[in-house]
This record gives sequence, structure tokens and C-alpha cells, in this order.
Amino acid sequence: MSMSATADDDTGSEARPRRAGRGERGGAAARRATRSSGGPGAQLTYIRRAIRPYEVLDDEGLTLIEANADTVLEEIGIEFRDDPEALALWKEAGADVQGDRVHFPKGLCRALLKTAPSIFTQHARNPARSVEIGGDATVFAPVYGPPFVRDLEGNRRYATIEDFRNFVKLAYMAPSIHHSGGTVCEPVDVPVNKRHLDMVFAHMRYSDKPFMGSVTAPERAEDTVEMARILFGEQFVDSNAVIVNLINANSPMVFDETMLGAAKVYARANQACIITPFILAGAMSPVTVAGTLTQVLAEVLAGAAFTQLVRPGAPVLFGTFASSISMQSGAPTFGTPEPSLVSYGAGQLARRAGLPFRTGGSLTGAKISDAQAAYESANTLNATVLAGTNFVLHAAGWLEGGLVSSYEKFMMDIDQLGMQQRLCEPIDLSENGQAMDAIREVGPGSHYLGCAHTQANFQTAFYRSSIADNNSYEQWAAEGEKTAHQRANQLARSWLEMYQAPELDPGIEEGLMDFIARRKESMPDAFA
Amino acid sequence: MSMSATADDDTGSEARPRRAGRGERGGAAARRATRSSGGPGAQLTYIRRAIRPYEVLDDEGLTLIEANADTVLEEIGIEFRDDPEALALWKEAGADVQGDRVHFPKGLCRALLKTAPSIFTQHARNPARSVEIGGDATVFAPVYGPPFVRDLEGNRRYATIEDFRNFVKLAYMAPSIHHSGGTVCEPVDVPVNKRHLDMVFAHMRYSDKPFMGSVTAPERAEDTVEMARILFGEQFVDSNAVIVNLINANSPMVFDETMLGAAKVYARANQACIITPFILAGAMSPVTVAGTLTQVLAEVLAGAAFTQLVRPGAPVLFGTFASSISMQSGAPTFGTPEPSLVSYGAGQLARRAGLPFRTGGSLTGAKISDAQAAYESANTLNATVLAGTNFVLHAAGWLEGGLVSSYEKFMMDIDQLGMQQRLCEPIDLSENGQAMDAIREVGPGSHYLGCAHTQANFQTAFYRSSIADNNSYEQWAAEGEKTAHQRANQLARSWLEMYQAPELDPGIEEGLMDFIARRKESMPDAFA
Repeated sequence: MSMSATADDDTGSEARPRRAGRGERGGAAARRATRSSGGPGAQLTYIRRAIRPYEVLDDEGLTLIEANADTVLEEIGIEFRDDPEALALWKEAGADVQGDRVHFPKGLCRALLKTAPSIFTQHARNPARSVEIGGDATVFAPVYGPPFVRDLEGNRRYATIEDFRNFVKLAYMAPSIHHSGGTVCEPVDVPVNKRHLDMVFAHMRYSDKPFMGSVTAPERAEDTVEMARILFGEQFVDSNAVIVNLINANSPMVFDETMLGAAKVYARANQACIITPFILAGAMSPVTVAGTLTQVLAEVLAGAAFTQLVRPGAPVLFGTFASSISMQSGAPTFGTPEPSLVSYGAGQLARRAGLPFRTGGSLTGAKISDAQAAYESANTLNATVLAGTNFVLHAAGWLEGGLVSSYEKFMMDIDQLGMQQRLCEPIDLSENGQAMDAIREVGPGSHYLGCAHTQANFQTAFYRSSIADNNSYEQWAAEGEKTAHQRANQLARSWLEMYQAPELDPGIEEGLMDFIARRKESMPDAFA
Repeated sequence: MSMSATADDDTGSEARPRRAGRGERGGAAARRATRSSGGPGAQLTYIRRAIRPYEVLDDEGLTLIEANADTVLEEIGIEFRDDPEALALWKEAGADVQGDRVHFPKGLCRALLKTAPSIFTQHARNPARSVEIGGDATVFAPVYGPPFVRDLEGNRRYATIEDFRNFVKLAYMAPSIHHSGGTVCEPVDVPVNKRHLDMVFAHMRYSDKPFMGSVTAPERAEDTVEMARILFGEQFVDSNAVIVNLINANSPMVFDETMLGAAKVYARANQACIITPFILAGAMSPVTVAGTLTQVLAEVLAGAAFTQLVRPGAPVLFGTFASSISMQSGAPTFGTPEPSLVSYGAGQLARRAGLPFRTGGSLTGAKISDAQAAYESANTLNATVLAGTNFVLHAAGWLEGGLVSSYEKFMMDIDQLGMQQRLCEPIDLSENGQAMDAIREVGPGSHYLGCAHTQANFQTAFYRSSIADNNSYEQWAAEGEKTAHQRANQLARSWLEMYQAPELDPGIEEGLMDFIARRKESMPDAFA
């Protein structure tokens, strides 16, 4: 895999987003907002992990799974459905195409992937918010996909465009969210054929963090790219990643027309695809960890190599969405050990394939933000971070197996993300970190509360939770015995009240709104 | 460190507990209980971790911390307070004793620790429940110490001996709890001078899992050993570990008379001590990870070496209780990143010292079993297991920073322990694990639900949670929108209803009750 030129040096490409002038200074508004008392605090840049990835398979196990994936690719093959262009590309590349089924000679996919960058920069309109994807970097992005929300009054209802904007705003304000994400919820009050325009605009207007594009139809992907060209400038978009896009495999071993259509648009535009086998093990893959990893690897290799057929060098991620199903009810389950093992193993396979890795998040099947939600989310998130995941979708706000975006869960999760970010920092072994002076000063039988070293370091010494109540029982009781859910509710309300939009060049905003108006006019009204 | 002869071969020692005959068959009662429908399921033996410990420090960092700990031991020293016998032992061993302060020549503590086993067996009266402590073994034990309970009616009140027995019963029934623990709560309805007798008896009578002894006074430690002699036989106790005991350092750098008294009793009786610096970083240790690890290592080396002065070869554990404090309120905080880093680092130091390691658990500062409790517990427990911890106290039931034992939290935590136990199993790379036949059988675009491989494996494929609700929203709503807390409450009630005591030889039971009656008679009534 080649190292992208844009990874560490974004002057190597076309310098800076064109015309996004005031967007670049949008950080000032963010800083103003975060300086307000009770506000979210200073924005954090994406994570550079100083801790190493956790590994569960040795070289022998990994080699076995890789050999089995090669067998799947060659003997069983992967279907690229209803897309003659895709099949023609594979034929030309030397694959054995029979109907929709593509059989890959050993080594073909990996050979094609040599042009894919192992790390790349996704640019934000505010350059301070641009993120690296790959290597030691980890980027947290919010929940993706739910048609429902749990609103701040406790109702479970269909999501609206107002909810969508609210989650974009909260993600913009959250220091430990590095990315605005994509479908933070489905705004079902907007017709499905026009929805993507309002969604992409919301990311561009209400946040200055990087974002994701529409993948539900090729023409919606085209619209996303067009809007990005208005925001960043045409040439900049052609030579830099400014959109990351979720391309799910229809597991087992199928890519469908819709996803292929979107993948082609984005790869052709040099934008990033996350090739993600969507796995509920036991339904979409074998019930075993090794079997699931084999199928995941085969699907990713085929899908990611396809992006390189479309445009060599286009950024592409090794994605894995791992869950199990309840063998009693067939319902998906989260936070259990088997998906964690799949995440750890898939991370190892991704690094060996030289591709940035996406998995996990703060996943749960719980219907409310209770202890089940938190245990399952924490189990998933701990494994996600230790697996060395580069791009973490669903990092905050996910409830009910992805059917619900929850405001309270979002606030709880971003607190956890802040903890994980701290966990990834290097252990300070400097003289100050060693603290021998403090130990000498305090000595046996005393305490460190007032010593010079503590005074000098206490502001930054420990992660400070925005949700946890660490007061005495008596004080907690006197304050109304609030649950974490109630505290999160209050916090979400106060953040939404103090939200201030980042500045955006009025010319760009007008250009985007003109484009959206024109596109909406061209569409039938009631199409869904 | 020498490898204990009892580690892999308990016929190498004095074979089997004397007279515990029916106790040995107590497992049958357990199995009967667990076969009942709705019951807890089959008992699990202690964990043999197939996954490797996670490490956060490299050799250079570890060497630096070890050198600093040596400096602390030599220059600053550790106080062994109000215990002339301890000071005399240190003097004799070559330490520089000034008042209560002991200064250790470089290498002295580590030289003394050469006689401590790196792994040993703690025998239970039911040999099937005996546990290994050290190496790749992990043992989960319940919450230790709380004076309060949250009872099944939701009241927060002082704990009673009935609560104590209830937690012993639940721990006995819980498949993923390998140990009966010690002070599962403080039975404050029993006078403090007599309490230990009822507590130790409860562990012996209502469970057949291994247990912990009293450490609140030397004579209570003596009583514990006496009762163990009645249960296991005198000679068996002298040559085998049957009691594990929590010896906290009074950090920073102090061991007090009470703990030293108990440590001497247990070490002399060849029973195991867990030397645990009790650290709320920022108060009892420096605010930095490296500084905390340095002090922890120095305290453990001194305390553990002391047990070897008392009786070379007595089992001893490297303990760490790591928490931070809120620098605003001074309250302890749990589940935050800094204690996790301390746990990972301390595990590495313990393995280098050749001692079994104790840390972590399911810790939280939350007042109720809400999302805060679960996030914090899961963060702590994930780090505890990945740190390669050998003995996990507080693995279930802990609430409110250790002030409260909670029935519901206990039920939730043991479910999480079951998941962790599964996580530690080896990834199946056999032909069945690879599942290539399944992938071939199903092929692209189908599903695995009914395939032969799934049918053959689904019973054991995935961990099955006893708490999580994975049903649809509609079903969950129809069933009353129960929280995880409510489901845990129901489960605790049903387990306590179906509890059946393991058999115990009536002669032994009578012997224990006689001993307790005699001891209680000898004590003043109202002493507290």
C-alpha cells in the first residue's frame, strides 16, 4: 500500500479549500462557544494512539484466515449484482465472471489494492478539523442510520430534519467527536428523494467538521459530490478526500446495484469508501469468529479492490460491522464477547492488508439509556479502541440496535469517547510524570492533596466526566436522586441552547442553497 | 519466583481436605440447583486466559519505574507501624530500621520474594471449586466491604447478616463467580467483635467455593484459621492455601498494626495475603500514572517481602486498588482512563516480580444501577481482565464507591463476568471453527440461519445474556418497558428462592458451631 501524499502534508495537494475562507475561521466561533461557562470545553483533534492495538490472533491464525479468504474469493466468488459496468471492469482485470458471480484468481484483489493509501487526510472546511484516517489515528463519528429518535421529552418517534440538525450541532460542539458523520438520523419528514440534499447541507452549514455522503442512490452520491465542489472547489475535491462514504456489502458475498452505484461515483471522484460487510453472525456469516473473519476479509478485499478498478488511488477503508444474533429470537445482540473478538481480529487483518480500519462504536440493543445500554456500549467501545480502529462510526447516540438516535445516549457516549481519547495518550515518563519529588515531599503517612506536584498538575491530571455524579449519597439525594439519563438530558438541552453556528462564506452558502433548490425542483414531489 | 508444587497437581500436596467428605460431593447439589429451569446454569471453573495481557509500558518504562521504586524503598523507606516484631524481622534481614521507618538495601525485597510462589492453588471444600491463583488463571470474587446495601425493595440501608448470607448464596449460584469472597457486606446487626465468626461460617456453610478471611484484628484472623482447620483438617491447612486475605497498605508508604497483625497470622499459617496499596491517586499517591505505579510497586515489594520473612513460601499477591479522585470535590472516581492505565502497568510489574496479580473489578461511584454504574463498571472490568489480573475482587455487586452492595448490580455484573470468561477462551481455528463448509453451503445472497454448521453450533456459539433484553421495541413495551435494573431485581429474587445449600458433613458443621459459640461466649457483649 502506498502512503498517501496528503497524509502528513496537505500543502502537497492543492493547498487549501478554495473560497472556504470564513469557514477556515469558523473555529473561532467554535472556540467562543466552548469558552462559554458550562459549555462543552475545548475541541480535541482526532486521536493519535500512543497505545498499541490489542491482538487476539497469532501469525499462524491470520495466515490461515487469509488463505481461506483467498479460497472463498476464487472458488465461491462474490456477486456484483445488476451492474454490467462492474462486471466488465472485473473481466478486464482478469477475473472469471459467470453471470453476476466474480471469481478472483489468487492475489488479484491484493495486487489491485497496492494503489490504495494506507492513510489519508479527510479535509474539513475548517482545516483545524481535518482528520487523518489510518495508521495510529482514530476518528470518532456519530451514530448513522436510525429512522427513530428518543427525543428530549422521552418520546420515541420518527426522526425529523430538526432532529438531524440537532445531532449535527451536538456533534459539532462535542470535543471528542472528530467528525460530523452522515445519516445521524433519517429525517423522515423530508421526501426520501430530496432528503440527502438537506442532510448534506446540514453537515456543511451547522458544522465545520468532516462529513459523510449519501449512498442510497448514485444520483444522490453525485449531488453530494457536487455540493462538496461548491464548498471546497472543484479541483480541491478531485485531488483530496473531503467525503467518506459507507458502502455496505449485502453479506454474504453480495454487492448490490445501489451500493456499487454509489461506490463508483465516490471512487471516481477520488472520495473515500468504507467497504463494510454488515454482519449479524449466524445470519449473514458463520456463527464462529474464524468463519466470520474469513468471509469479512473476502468481501472487503473484493469490494475495496473494486474501488481501485474504478480509480486507482481512491481512498478505501476495511470496514466491519460485527454483531451476533440471539439464536432464540433472531434479534441482533451487542456488547457480547464474540463481536469483540471479530473486531480485534479484523483490525489485525486490516493492518496486514494495509488499509485503514473501521469497526464498532457504542453499540447496544437496549431500548433506553439504562445499564444494559451502557454495559453493551462500553464493551463495544473498549474493544473498538483497543482494536486500533481508525474510523469509528456510531461512536455516540446509538440505541435499540441502530433503530433509534438518542439525545441522552449521545451525551453519555461523548463523555466515554473523551475517556477513550485520554486512554490513548502516552504515559508521561518525564521527570514530572515520574513524580519522585512528590513522593519525597509527601513521604509515609501523609497525603498528596496539597503537595506542589499535585497543585501543578491537578487541572489536567484526571479525566473529568461531564455525566458522572461522584458526590456523596447525601448530596446526590438532596439534588433529587438524578439518574445519568436525567443529567444527560439536561446537558443536551443546555448545549442546544448555547449552540452557535460556525461562519460560512455567504457566497458558498448561497451557491449550496441554489443548487439544492434547483435539484429539488427537478424532482417529483411525492416520490418516496 | 518458584512455581508452587500445588499449581498443576494437587496430589503433590497433602492430597485432599480431611473430613470434608460430603463437602466434596456438594457440587451435586449445585448441579441440581443449576439444572432447574430458569436457574443460573452450569458452574464454570476459574478462567484460563487464552488471550494475552494488554501492555501499556515498554521495557524501558518498566525498568525506569522499578529503579524509582528501589529508590523509594532505599531512600524514603516504608513504615511498619507499632509492630516491634515486624521491625525486628526487618533488622534481622538486613534492612536499616529507624523508628518505624524501614529502609531497604537495593534488591533485598526482591531477594526475599524468591520464595513466594508465582502460582498457587486455593483449595475449596468442594475440590471442583478450588482455584488457581497466578499465571494465566483469572478468578472472579464478589464485592468486599460495603456497610450498606440497596435491598430488593430499593431501600438503601445498613447491611445485615441476612444480606451477607444472601450475597454468599448468589455468589455460590453464579456460574461466573469462582470465589465466595470475604466481607460481601458488613453485617452491622452483629457486634463488630463477633461478626467475623458469622461471616466466615456463612462462607463455609452456604457455599462450597473458596473464601477470604477476617483481617480486622489478629485474633479474628486466628479465629478464621481455626475454623478453616475444623473444615479442612489441621495438617491440610498447614500445607495448603485455603484462605486468601486482603492486606491493605495504608498508602502512602505505611503498613499499620492491624494489617500487619493479620498478615503475620495468615502468613505464619501458610495462607495467602493480597498486599494491596489502597490508592485514590491525588490523595494516597501522585496524580501521575508513573508516579502511582512507582509507589504501588515499592509498597507491594515491602509488604510481600514481609510475608516471606514471616514464613518463606507463604503465598502472596501483588495487589493494586487504583482509583482517581475528583480534584474538585475530593470524591473517588471510577471507570476513568487513569486507573485503567495503572491497572495495565501494575499487571506488567507484577508479572515481572513473579507474583500473582490482583486489581480492579466492577467499580463505580454511581449511587444506583444506572448507565453511570454500567459504563464505569464495564470500563474497569474490561481493563481488569485484559490486564491479566489473576484475582478480581469486587467483580460483582459494588455500588457507590464501595459503600453499597447492590443485589441488582450483582446480577448485572455476573452477566458481564460470564461475557469476560467467554472472551478469554481461545478462538476456534479447527475445521469447525473455520466454517469453510458453511460458507460453501450457503454461498452468496443466502443466509446461515438454517445451515448445517449453524444448527450444529448454535447452542454454544454466542454468549447468552441473562439480563439484556434483545427483543423488539414493541415486545419490550408490551412487557412493561422494564429496565435492566428491574430485570436484575426479578432474577435475584428468583435465584434466592431456588437456592439450595451444598451439603456439609454434620460433624464439621457441629464443630464449627461449637467453636463459634465458645468464642462468642468469651467476648464482651457490647464491644464495638
